[in-house]
Amino acid sequence: MIAWQNLDTLESWKKLEKTGKKVSLPEVLSGEAGGARVREYAVDMGGGLKYYYGAKQVDEEILSGLSALAEEAQLSEKYQALYEGAVINTGEKRLVLHHLTRGQLGHAVEADGVDKRAFYTAQQEKIADFARKVHAGEIVNEKGESFTTVVQIGIGGSDLGPRAMYLALENWAKANGHFRMEARFISNVDPDDAAAVLKSTDVSRAIFILVSKSGTTLETLTNEAFVKDALNKAGLDAGKHMIAVTSETSPLAKSSDYLAAFFMDDYIGGRYSSTSAVGGAVLSLAFGPDIFARFLSGAAEEDRLATEKDARKNPAMLDALIGVYERNILGYPSTAVLPYSQALSRFPAHLQQLDMESNGKSVNRNGEKVNYVTGPVIFGEPGTNGQHSFYQLLHQGTDIIPLQFIGFRQNQAGMDVDIQGSTSQQKLGANVAAQILAFACGKEDSNRNKYFEGNRPSSIIIGDQLTPEALGALLAHFENKVMFQGFLWNLNSFDQEGVQLGKVLAKRVLAHDTDGALKVFSDLLGI
Amino acid sequence: MIAWQNLDTLESWKKLEKTGKKVSLPEVLSGEAGGARVREYAVDMGGGLKYYYGAKQVDEEILSGLSALAEEAQLSEKYQALYEGAVINTGEKRLVLHHLTRGQLGHAVEADGVDKRAFYTAQQEKIADFARKVHAGEIVNEKGESFTTVVQIGIGGSDLGPRAMYLALENWAKANGHFRMEARFISNVDPDDAAAVLKSTDVSRAIFILVSKSGTTLETLTNEAFVKDALNKAGLDAGKHMIAVTSETSPLAKSSDYLAAFFMDDYIGGRYSSTSAVGGAVLSLAFGPDIFARFLSGAAEEDRLATEKDARKNPAMLDALIGVYERNILGYPSTAVLPYSQALSRFPAHLQQLDMESNGKSVNRNGEKVNYVTGPVIFGEPGTNGQHSFYQLLHQGTDIIPLQFIGFRQNQAGMDVDIQGSTSQQKLGANVAAQILAFACGKEDSNRNKYFEGNRPSSIIIGDQLTPEALGALLAHFENKVMFQGFLWNLNSFDQEGVQLGKVLAKRVLAHDTDGALKVFSDLLGI
Repeated sequence: MIAWQNLDTLESWKKLEKTGKKVSLPEVLSGEAGGARVREYAVDMGGGLKYYYGAKQVDEEILSGLSALAEEAQLSEKYQALYEGAVINTGEKRLVLHHLTRGQLGHAVEADGVDKRAFYTAQQEKIADFARKVHAGEIVNEKGESFTTVVQIGIGGSDLGPRAMYLALENWAKANGHFRMEARFISNVDPDDAAAVLKSTDVSRAIFILVSKSGTTLETLTNEAFVKDALNKAGLDAGKHMIAVTSETSPLAKSSDYLAAFFMDDYIGGRYSSTSAVGGAVLSLAFGPDIFARFLSGAAEEDRLATEKDARKNPAMLDALIGVYERNILGYPSTAVLPYSQALSRFPAHLQQLDMESNGKSVNRNGEKVNYVTGPVIFGEPGTNGQHSFYQLLHQGTDIIPLQFIGFRQNQAGMDVDIQGSTSQQKLGANVAAQILAFACGKEDSNRNKYFEGNRPSSIIIGDQLTPEALGALLAHFENKVMFQGFLWNLNSFDQEGVQLGKVLAKRVLAHDTDGALKVFSDLLGI
Repeated sequence: MIAWQNLDTLESWKKLEKTGKKVSLPEVLSGEAGGARVREYAVDMGGGLKYYYGAKQVDEEILSGLSALAEEAQLSEKYQALYEGAVINTGEKRLVLHHLTRGQLGHAVEADGVDKRAFYTAQQEKIADFARKVHAGEIVNEKGESFTTVVQIGIGGSDLGPRAMYLALENWAKANGHFRMEARFISNVDPDDAAAVLKSTDVSRAIFILVSKSGTTLETLTNEAFVKDALNKAGLDAGKHMIAVTSETSPLAKSSDYLAAFFMDDYIGGRYSSTSAVGGAVLSLAFGPDIFARFLSGAAEEDRLATEKDARKNPAMLDALIGVYERNILGYPSTAVLPYSQALSRFPAHLQQLDMESNGKSVNRNGEKVNYVTGPVIFGEPGTNGQHSFYQLLHQGTDIIPLQFIGFRQNQAGMDVDIQGSTSQQKLGANVAAQILAFACGKEDSNRNKYFEGNRPSSIIIGDQLTPEALGALLAHFENKVMFQGFLWNLNSFDQEGVQLGKVLAKRVLAHDTDGALKVFSDLLGI
């Protein structure tokens, strides 16, 4: 029997709060014992990745307190309920099934009269078939020419995740013979966004993917019209250049305006949709369906690890627990995501959405106000770039900000130079290793301006190379982490009521149904 | 006589702290009075922009308290001292002269035996001359072909600011006949960054700008070697493809490896260097020197407004004061920057560096620990994209995050579509107007999940169009805001000692001079 309880009602939580201890990182990371701690505080993540938490402010006592919390909060049971089809999204009364897009845990899930795993698999196969035909020159433009570019039109989860995943694999695919088509993205309702993409794309050789679950997203429909207008002006038949990714009940589903339509459903939240048709269409076209399948297999591997009941063997659960400890007991208000990989340049932006939209809530799943802070601010940029930017504040600012590093032993493109006895890849790795210790241990200096307090906690995910499997595991890790944190805070992580009010007011502005301050701002903005 | 005092020692500050009042935005923004407040709480920023602060939690009492604080903290006097050549950067014992790169306030400043304004102007003229020759086909590659691409090699301030400025004007320049050359950027020491740029650039037609003040930046020198290697492999003479932007004392200054060298100096901090040769070379090559001059004139206009002693007429000073009020009295830990303009996609990343590297400090200008919080976390993405991502937390999360919106009445590219009675540009403006009111006033709902508390403060900068002048004013606004906040917190905003420790440790890792935890992390990362 699952009990949905607020974090502050759990006995194991009250006990943790009372401990009142703070692990000193300079102490626990010093000497040979420090090295041993780094090797010991590590857990496999799937996809060839490993999660290292030796530079977090935890010790055996705190970790066993967190394990007890995981048990009392029934994290494993709740995860199982979710992937076996419970109505976890209480507000919208929906199942939460993104795990099924990349594997099957537990029993089959039936909904809307069909086996959902079979439904998602069938969509993936339809996409694979379509992509293969495009690559083979069987699906071509009006002149019989092959398509060379795919342009995704979508916003939010239909943009950030797929875009981050595309960028993460673009150079790997080019270096390994898997690059099929360039992908571009149009998201913003700002007309300059679509204009810039269209001006620099040969639209006669482009396939556009319209992605909207409801088929009613303002930005996406507006950009669709923008694109159709450009195709028509170029003398092209828009219907021969567009496909749709949507739900079966959406107005787009049955339209003859599209070459093909691929389906998702209400059980796949936008920010969890990279492994569904939303990511599947663009990534299969760009890199081929086999690469997309490898990406899914990495995610499925992490999903299985996330079923481990022992938090110490479950990287997503452990990360979630430590994050809540940092947020609610140590009082750290934000988290920085710092991938030492240029390919992950937009991964922090994806996590920003995933985390802040899922757990930026003030009420629990029953709609009652909670008495504790929930989701932190998430931000980040790739290293080493960030080192020359905002790291100053991370090292010496007045707030402590936990850090999530990501690093790989090999680059993707296979090009490198040896300067002063080391390659660029080694310099990159040396920098992230150095940063972890600098943040954790600090440095004494009688000049306070050159003094580093230390005790700034971080974890690092390390892999051999950013491959499709590694990327899938990385994505699933954070999806599952955010899910476990939602369970701990007793939130519904799968709705987003906070975005509704702005939509309603924007419609009023466009209908000129405003007065007072709203009318003045509308006037000032030239509406 | 200027007194450098900690914020918490100022009488006007103590008085403000005691006020203990919190302005209710739903109250002050309601009805006709709310509309009048929006129009009244506004101040010109230069470049055709205006700063609106009607949706901030201030009223006449708080504003007059903040004005008194500005006076007691001698903000105007300190700014004057800075631009007239005082040693404001105490730690490094340097002048702070970025204002001189775009105008002259007050008396001439002499340093190193020269008039610095004349020095910066001469560099700008040398760049203009060089750029005109490139555009006219007088400076060409070995085969006598014109150059078509400019690639900036730099990191931190040599990357983020110039890159954000380039992206901000790229589509405007294309639409207005000012686009001369495409610009690309290589920054990260990750070899995949340089590899991706080089693979997609015709290097035989490219000019590379090596930007490093000291001439010793690890990432930049490594990437220079990477690029030279690629040029050599392509059978090209690297010396015919590279220019340098550096200080006169740097090893790069006198090298015959470069077609030309342009100079900055120690009085221009990296994050304040977009208006110096660091931004000047790439922007003049991309858009022509006249456009760069217009950008400077916009910045100069804001710089002059920043000399206003009356905070109510000085947008940068007012923004700074309200920001400190929000950070230190209202206790808000971070700020989101939300431009409703796709062209400003990397402007938040530039502000993140500008602000967090300048004011992410725990000691005052005398090296004494301060007893109050300083620089906040800065993050952001363009709207409307952000609305479909992290706005959920901004609206309904447990922390309050002040918001800086930016909006324009016109787009840049001049392409738009009318759908359902409104253009995309109008939809964009309608969304930002709606968001301001949604955040400020919230919405009652008996279902707590659909309830919006409101009282989430924001300001908005509005302009007609994002032109070079508007961009210059926007940039200078935030530079001056950050400077005034540094004065208020009594920090040295112009050094960055916090980045040093990581550099030292990275060198040790590369020299294999490590043990314990650092050695283990190095091993795990394959160094």
